[in-house]
Amino acid sequence: MSNTLIRVTVWGENIHDQRDEEVRKVYPKTMHGTIADGIQEHLGSNVEVRTASLDQPEHGLTDEILDSTDVLTWWGHAGHHLVKDAVVEKVHKRVLSGMGLIVLHSGHWSKIFVKLMGTTCALRWRDDDRETIFTVNPGHPIARNIPPVFTIPLQEMYGEYFDIPQPDELVFLSTFKGGEVFRSGCCFIRGQGRIFYFSPGHETYPVYHQVEVKQVIANGVEWAYSPPKERYATSTCVQSPLGWMEKDTEK
Amino acid sequence: MSNTLIRVTVWGENIHDQRDEEVRKVYPKTMHGTIADGIQEHLGSNVEVRTASLDQPEHGLTDEILDSTDVLTWWGHAGHHLVKDAVVEKVHKRVLSGMGLIVLHSGHWSKIFVKLMGTTCALRWRDDDRETIFTVNPGHPIARNIPPVFTIPLQEMYGEYFDIPQPDELVFLSTFKGGEVFRSGCCFIRGQGRIFYFSPGHETYPVYHQVEVKQVIANGVEWAYSPPKERYATSTCVQSPLGWMEKDTEK
Amino acid sequence: MSNTLIRVTVWGENIHDQRDEEVRKVYPKTMHGTIADGIQEHLGSNVEVRTASLDQPEHGLTDEILDSTDVLTWWGHAGHHLVKDAVVEKVHKRVLSGMGLIVLHSGHWSKIFVKLMGTTCALRWRDDDRETIFTVNPGHPIARNIPPVFTIPLQEMYGEYFDIPQPDELVFLSTFKGGEVFRSGCCFIRGQGRIFYFSPGHETYPVYHQVEVKQVIANGVEWAYSPPKERYATSTCVQSPLGWMEKDTEK
Amino acid sequence: MSNTLIRVTVWGENIHDQRDEEVRKVYPKTMHGTIADGIQEHLGSNVEVRTASLDQPEHGLTDEILDSTDVLTWWGHAGHHLVKDAVVEKVHKRVLSGMGLIVLHSGHWSKIFVKLMGTTCALRWRDDDRETIFTVNPGHPIARNIPPVFTIPLQEMYGEYFDIPQPDELVFLSTFKGGEVFRSGCCFIRGQGRIFYFSPGHETYPVYHQVEVKQVIANGVEWAYSPPKERYATSTCVQSPLGWMEKDTEK
Repeated sequence: MSNTLIRVTVWGENIHDQRDEEVRKVYPKTMHGTIADGIQEHLGSNVEVRTASLDQPEHGLTDEILDSTDVLTWWGHAGHHLVKDAVVEKVHKRVLSGMGLIVLHSGHWSKIFVKLMGTTCALRWRDDDRETIFTVNPGHPIARNIPPVFTIPLQEMYGEYFDIPQPDELVFLSTFKGGEVFRSGCCFIRGQGRIFYFSPGHETYPVYHQVEVKQVIANGVEWAYSPPKERYATSTCVQSPLGWMEKDTEK
Repeated sequence: MSNTLIRVTVWGENIHDQRDEEVRKVYPKTMHGTIADGIQEHLGSNVEVRTASLDQPEHGLTDEILDSTDVLTWWGHAGHHLVKDAVVEKVHKRVLSGMGLIVLHSGHWSKIFVKLMGTTCALRWRDDDRETIFTVNPGHPIARNIPPVFTIPLQEMYGEYFDIPQPDELVFLSTFKGGEVFRSGCCFIRGQGRIFYFSPGHETYPVYHQVEVKQVIANGVEWAYSPPKERYATSTCVQSPLGWMEKDTEK
Repeated sequence: MSNTLIRVTVWGENIHDQRDEEVRKVYPKTMHGTIADGIQEHLGSNVEVRTASLDQPEHGLTDEILDSTDVLTWWGHAGHHLVKDAVVEKVHKRVLSGMGLIVLHSGHWSKIFVKLMGTTCALRWRDDDRETIFTVNPGHPIARNIPPVFTIPLQEMYGEYFDIPQPDELVFLSTFKGGEVFRSGCCFIRGQGRIFYFSPGHETYPVYHQVEVKQVIANGVEWAYSPPKERYATSTCVQSPLGWMEKDTEK
Repeated sequence: MSNTLIRVTVWGENIHDQRDEEVRKVYPKTMHGTIADGIQEHLGSNVEVRTASLDQPEHGLTDEILDSTDVLTWWGHAGHHLVKDAVVEKVHKRVLSGMGLIVLHSGHWSKIFVKLMGTTCALRWRDDDRETIFTVNPGHPIARNIPPVFTIPLQEMYGEYFDIPQPDELVFLSTFKGGEVFRSGCCFIRGQGRIFYFSPGHETYPVYHQVEVKQVIANGVEWAYSPPKERYATSTCVQSPLGWMEKDTEK
């Protein structure tokens, strides 16, 4: 536990960040740059953080990069449809083999999240609201150093019904001005992969500058991490004649 | 399935119902009487409903009554400490052996619910609020004929953190005027028993007269039901010499 | 509950059933025909059962058929890759909208199951074994009238690691001669759809003639059923201006 | 994460260890002594390990000891009934407030485990068997460095039905010579407490000397740990007038 170095790749769509003046003001270093800084700030020498984005070759997610990524974070919105299926396949395979995945905000609608969930991942939404976040699993590692309740002053509303499988662990619930509710912090285990969906974060609000949000994402990175030597793919059906077990445990 | 007769016992503490003028006005037939009527109304000839209360011998829960009860509903508040431990033990044993249990509102703090959960079951509360209820598991039998969202105009606030085990199935979430959130419809399986906790319902508000609330409780009764012939106790550790299985399946 | 008519479509690949002499001997009425008979036998006038197969137009799953199907059962093996993606999409959408789905044996590797799970659904296997099935959730509706343990004398071995999400409810566990273990009865909720995976059943063994297996499948059909009027799709993200709730509940 | 020191108290009943010649031969340093050594060996300078036993004042679990314990492990068998209720209450309160708990083998029948589960925790058993353990959640921290399958050559059989709530996370399944199956590695979250039940380990077999078993227990200790500063009790219902949230977050 003590000598772990977590290699994090922060993926950002980088569309609003380049195109929209308003977004550039809120996130002069881009959203993914800001998210990367927050992780670095909270986890220090325990992490090595880099960014990747849609406009790079293979969206910045080459085999080399993926093979040296322990945890991938994902923010997308305007360009979900521009992400190549081949890249989604590669990321999907890595997640099932043990790469952690943190899906942020509008990433609920990304190809990779929808594929992992098997449901539509649709939800309700409205601009211009305020989010109040409650911890409903106070012993969970992702809730560490997070108060029982905190507020994000400016935030988009995301509301139920959120069409996801029941989370393996529900960590946070959120409410909004209109009385809406949302399962805003959800853990899923898929294969060997550990997936955390966290809904706060919108391109026109300074959500990723807020200390509690940065803490939650950093906690999520630690929770989602699996040691690389432990990872093995399980993508085929293995015929196993009597005696396979003895051979297997001899190794 | 079609010939099922569900025998329901609606248990009420019957303290506020007798003592408080305000409560008598809202529930002239008592709260348990009103809850019983609602179940009868929704399930018709599929149920046989009776009531029992704290002031009766053995709190109205004699062996004879319990042995002919398929689903027990529980409302208590002022007199949790007056419920005898011996009765709690008997109910606990029955639930684990397959009797369904519907725990309502302040029943979260009852001896039987706390014993089944293993946690404190503590929560936040405030009088004089409004509850908005969202279905977050729309394919669940308890959500049948319930709209995606509905409101209870006058209701006490119950808020997180609610100290329960993560529900086996989360069906409803509620929000309140102060922005609070609550896991208001929770299913738990314990032994062979099916337990549904539903938080709406307060002695001074006409909650149990509201059609959606009656529908949810009736749905809960159907969900919690197990056929009596299926029930068997599992309270001892059974030594099982090689060959037990063959004997067991010969029966 | 009492007047429910469940419309079941039993889907079979119908390849081994036509091609292999050995299979024709064990299942002279085809596997899907035998499964359909078992459901009819156990649920009587509560069900209306028909079959559909790969070789029919649209694999027998036209809009008309799907729109009048409450629960679909799925057995496939040699021809998973022959199932058209467009049909898989239609079935997927129906399941998320509330059509029940029972996936049998080698159906774990079908396009529809893999898509709903989001994982590889890979497993270990070996011919020529014996399966012993244990109920680990004795209060579950699918365990009704099923003994605590029963044996299938001739059966293929399916063993862990089975790459599925943790089931929402685990009902059965199986063991085999080689000491293997398998999560053989698994419930999943996806959207409004209720999905039951049950691993027993192989084309060259008379598994679907065994009374306990027929009972489990019939129980699964009842468990997976949702009333059609309750079904609504949730495939889009709905913008919801303040006030949407009042309008919605006015309906 | 890197500077964590986990303070572990290994509790042993210390009855067989003193009384039975056969047990003294297998565990010359007592069972709890051996378990403590295994934890120390695997976690090194990240842990501080001590032991406590039934025969000590307050069973070795004084307030001072409990207040400086991050994770408690529990092995009992012959003397469950000798554990004082007052000590059980104190341990229960600490677990709900965030102290981790590892329950081993026959500890399934201890007062503290039964109280936390709310069920009978009964099971089947037989002496003189062999246990084969399968990982069914390969991405789980408790499965780290554990092979997909391993065998304990001499072990008691523990079999289903095991009367526990469905685990929040199921990590291991076991099979035995007689074809039995058991949920042998189960995680439960209760309040802020993280509880891991692991069934291998019997007084007359050298199970706690086996490297995989020691590794699992060490992994369990790391998984069950919560930082002490995070722990807070939640044993009362808190009246929360409008505005409580603002005050709470001002802190």
